[in-house]
Amino acid sequence: MRHLRSLDDLGPGGVVRLLGLTDHMVDIGRRAMPKVPALRGRTVAMCFFEDSTRTRLSFDTAAKRLSADTMTFSVSNSSLNKGESLRDTIETLESMGVDAFVVRHRSSGVPWQIARWTSAAVVNAGDGWHQHPTQALLDAYTLWTSLGRAPLEDGRPLAGVRVAIVGDIKHSRVARSDVDAFTQLGAEVVLVAPPTLLPPSLEAWPVTATDRLDDVLDTVDVLYLLRMQRERLGESLLPGLREYTSRFALTPERAARLRPEVRVMHPGPMNRGVEIGVDPARLAHSLILDQVTNGVAVRMAVLFDLLAQGGDTSTTVSALGDRHD
Amino acid sequence: MRHLRSLDDLGPGGVVRLLGLTDHMVDIGRRAMPKVPALRGRTVAMCFFEDSTRTRLSFDTAAKRLSADTMTFSVSNSSLNKGESLRDTIETLESMGVDAFVVRHRSSGVPWQIARWTSAAVVNAGDGWHQHPTQALLDAYTLWTSLGRAPLEDGRPLAGVRVAIVGDIKHSRVARSDVDAFTQLGAEVVLVAPPTLLPPSLEAWPVTATDRLDDVLDTVDVLYLLRMQRERLGESLLPGLREYTSRFALTPERAARLRPEVRVMHPGPMNRGVEIGVDPARLAHSLILDQVTNGVAVRMAVLFDLLAQGGDTSTTVSALGDRHD
Amino acid sequence: MRHLRSLDDLGPGGVVRLLGLTDHMVDIGRRAMPKVPALRGRTVAMCFFEDSTRTRLSFDTAAKRLSADTMTFSVSNSSLNKGESLRDTIETLESMGVDAFVVRHRSSGVPWQIARWTSAAVVNAGDGWHQHPTQALLDAYTLWTSLGRAPLEDGRPLAGVRVAIVGDIKHSRVARSDVDAFTQLGAEVVLVAPPTLLPPSLEAWPVTATDRLDDVLDTVDVLYLLRMQRERLGESLLPGLREYTSRFALTPERAARLRPEVRVMHPGPMNRGVEIGVDPARLAHSLILDQVTNGVAVRMAVLFDLLAQGGDTSTTVSALGDRHD
Repeated sequence: MRHLRSLDDLGPGGVVRLLGLTDHMVDIGRRAMPKVPALRGRTVAMCFFEDSTRTRLSFDTAAKRLSADTMTFSVSNSSLNKGESLRDTIETLESMGVDAFVVRHRSSGVPWQIARWTSAAVVNAGDGWHQHPTQALLDAYTLWTSLGRAPLEDGRPLAGVRVAIVGDIKHSRVARSDVDAFTQLGAEVVLVAPPTLLPPSLEAWPVTATDRLDDVLDTVDVLYLLRMQRERLGESLLPGLREYTSRFALTPERAARLRPEVRVMHPGPMNRGVEIGVDPARLAHSLILDQVTNGVAVRMAVLFDLLAQGGDTSTTVSALGDRHD
Repeated sequence: MRHLRSLDDLGPGGVVRLLGLTDHMVDIGRRAMPKVPALRGRTVAMCFFEDSTRTRLSFDTAAKRLSADTMTFSVSNSSLNKGESLRDTIETLESMGVDAFVVRHRSSGVPWQIARWTSAAVVNAGDGWHQHPTQALLDAYTLWTSLGRAPLEDGRPLAGVRVAIVGDIKHSRVARSDVDAFTQLGAEVVLVAPPTLLPPSLEAWPVTATDRLDDVLDTVDVLYLLRMQRERLGESLLPGLREYTSRFALTPERAARLRPEVRVMHPGPMNRGVEIGVDPARLAHSLILDQVTNGVAVRMAVLFDLLAQGGDTSTTVSALGDRHD
Repeated sequence: MRHLRSLDDLGPGGVVRLLGLTDHMVDIGRRAMPKVPALRGRTVAMCFFEDSTRTRLSFDTAAKRLSADTMTFSVSNSSLNKGESLRDTIETLESMGVDAFVVRHRSSGVPWQIARWTSAAVVNAGDGWHQHPTQALLDAYTLWTSLGRAPLEDGRPLAGVRVAIVGDIKHSRVARSDVDAFTQLGAEVVLVAPPTLLPPSLEAWPVTATDRLDDVLDTVDVLYLLRMQRERLGESLLPGLREYTSRFALTPERAARLRPEVRVMHPGPMNRGVEIGVDPARLAHSLILDQVTNGVAVRMAVLFDLLAQGGDTSTTVSALGDRHD
């Protein structure tokens, strides 16, 4: 793997391979000393052209656990405000010795643009409504481990699992990437949203769709709630908070109806009172904090896969056993 | 010790114990290589919901000298602005692997709230007008070492010392915490302030109070000046800058009257021309920069006490002798 | 060397000595593990009272490659906003254990002021229109290596080289420092600018000046383009963007005329369409990204020279061979 702009960059079987590599990283996180020297001397630049403290800290923690150095470039106090082009910024940072760029940007496609300008690795940490591949990997890993770790060999460890993704599908890079990961691994996905919040066409998506959450609530194994942008609720696409909540939120009434084995997921940050009206800690099976914990491990796996010397992960993964003296 | 929200968390004899542990940290700070691997692999999150560069850098330096990793979470660019609750933020950071939260917040009690939500350690770096325990510890340590390091055994190494704390007592977490620390260690404290800037009742405080600085100036061993918030000077509680300064500031005239052995202290940042009208470098006995230096050592002691493996400081303190190869 | 406020602090032969030391740092940057433990335990404070992400990250990367700890102090969220004096800020940071201050400030002379207040080392990262010594060193190093690494022994490795510096000389600390470095090393410098953008008197400068770029374009070995502040283009000193560009920019027409061996340099960030109207990647000999790469190495050399134990670089430089285990 040279870059991780979307899951396509992982190639055939790549998602499954990353799940296995993530297992090693989870092991490291559980050690008394949760650090390894694997990426010592490598530099990872966090380029967040759109704020996301949580994603940035997750990548930063992942890099530090592998002993990489990190630098943070945020647009607010950068020379992009002085008229420098994005390309000049990237080339400048690369010339300082950056080995990987972690990029968050409000415009779709920016990570691909950046990859054309640099020989460093590019990791997409969310571009517009487009892709968020590490979110998809951490969601897939979280589901896989929570549902009993079916064998990875046949490449379909989520076969037979039925997932409902609920909310603003149209504007969600999380939904786009998750549909890809979940279905690759064999899961069945149903999208639940008002028609105005679905993409114009679902033809290319291997999913079904409905606007009735109550109809699918009893048939799914996983309820994946998307974050609803509060600012969108005032727009013409949507009838307003009260109606949205009554039809699409996990209300106390719906939570009471859920079978205890149903997993509830959310990419965070949660909009309490909008898409979720219950305390997740009181649900039988919330995976929301597991997603956060696994996010660090997945990002370790991605950075390791991109940057470990030799480039051949299979020969370098044994180095993960190394401990700091 | 599980948390340090106020000095009460240290338990009986705890302040004295921390003074001893701080001595070890001061030693480390004087080495050619002022770092030890004691907290390698631990992560300390600086959660500053109110700006304080100086306190944040002091904790950050302390954590790095113990080889911990640090992350900084400041509210200005966080998902708290996106409607996420404080509880969700804390749980998310903990799920990323945070071992200790250092919390500064404008509201009293927030560190206690946070401690209910997390199994990580919580250190109060200042909550509203309420508590600032590491400031009290560094002030106590600074006084103790400056005044000849009386034996710690009987728990009252500041016995016989008379301290005047001058300024806006009512709104000062520093005053609250310092009164507690100084009197626990045997010192006598007199509060000097206009009646409008004293708390409504002093009954529970083991102190005396006066509004005449000149009356106590000749009788004290220590003059502790509080920072006066400039913005408060326009409020109805106060007559204005000129009168405040003439009655409560360390003016050149008062500085000339001070016996040379009187220690002058200030928590910083100083408001020159308000509570202090002289250059502290020209005072016979300013401890203001010693407070800053000892602040790093005290915060090392606190983080070490909270996070060193085993939890039993007496058995792990020997590890402080370890050096980086 | 105690400080690096201007090149004068390097003493006679100092620029040449730093070129040699930079060679060692470039070697380190090319290793599979581009870090050495030379400054472990030292703390470098980045004090940027004026934004400059690129310069700050360059120093930060340099410090980390030498294993120093870094802290960043930016004025926007500091107690300078609470009325603390600059002197108190510096003394406070020094008391926390800072070994070197890297200072960027909009006012000329601030690094000299700071050096009077602290016993830590001070590095000028740009003060007003005045000096920017590490930029001059990195420019000199870049030219020297690009032009064939003439012997350093006689102290004039740029003898015979003709450099045009083009743009707003009057307000440029880069121009001031570069003229000093280039001429010390034997180069001949011609300043190219409208008369309103030249200093009032050039008597003390060992340079010539012209306002006709086209007259010198065929005679120089190096074309050094300064950044034009867009906001200045509206001022009375200047006729406007279109005229400035037609007379002083590297337009496609001028680029086509350049002999292929002419080196093009720019301190960044570039104002595309103002001082440069071509893609530097298409020039035969752009050194712009080499400048960035060498910037990290030069700053490593400066920090090493200031902070390596013993203070005698010649005896400690062998330690650069040490690798992290």
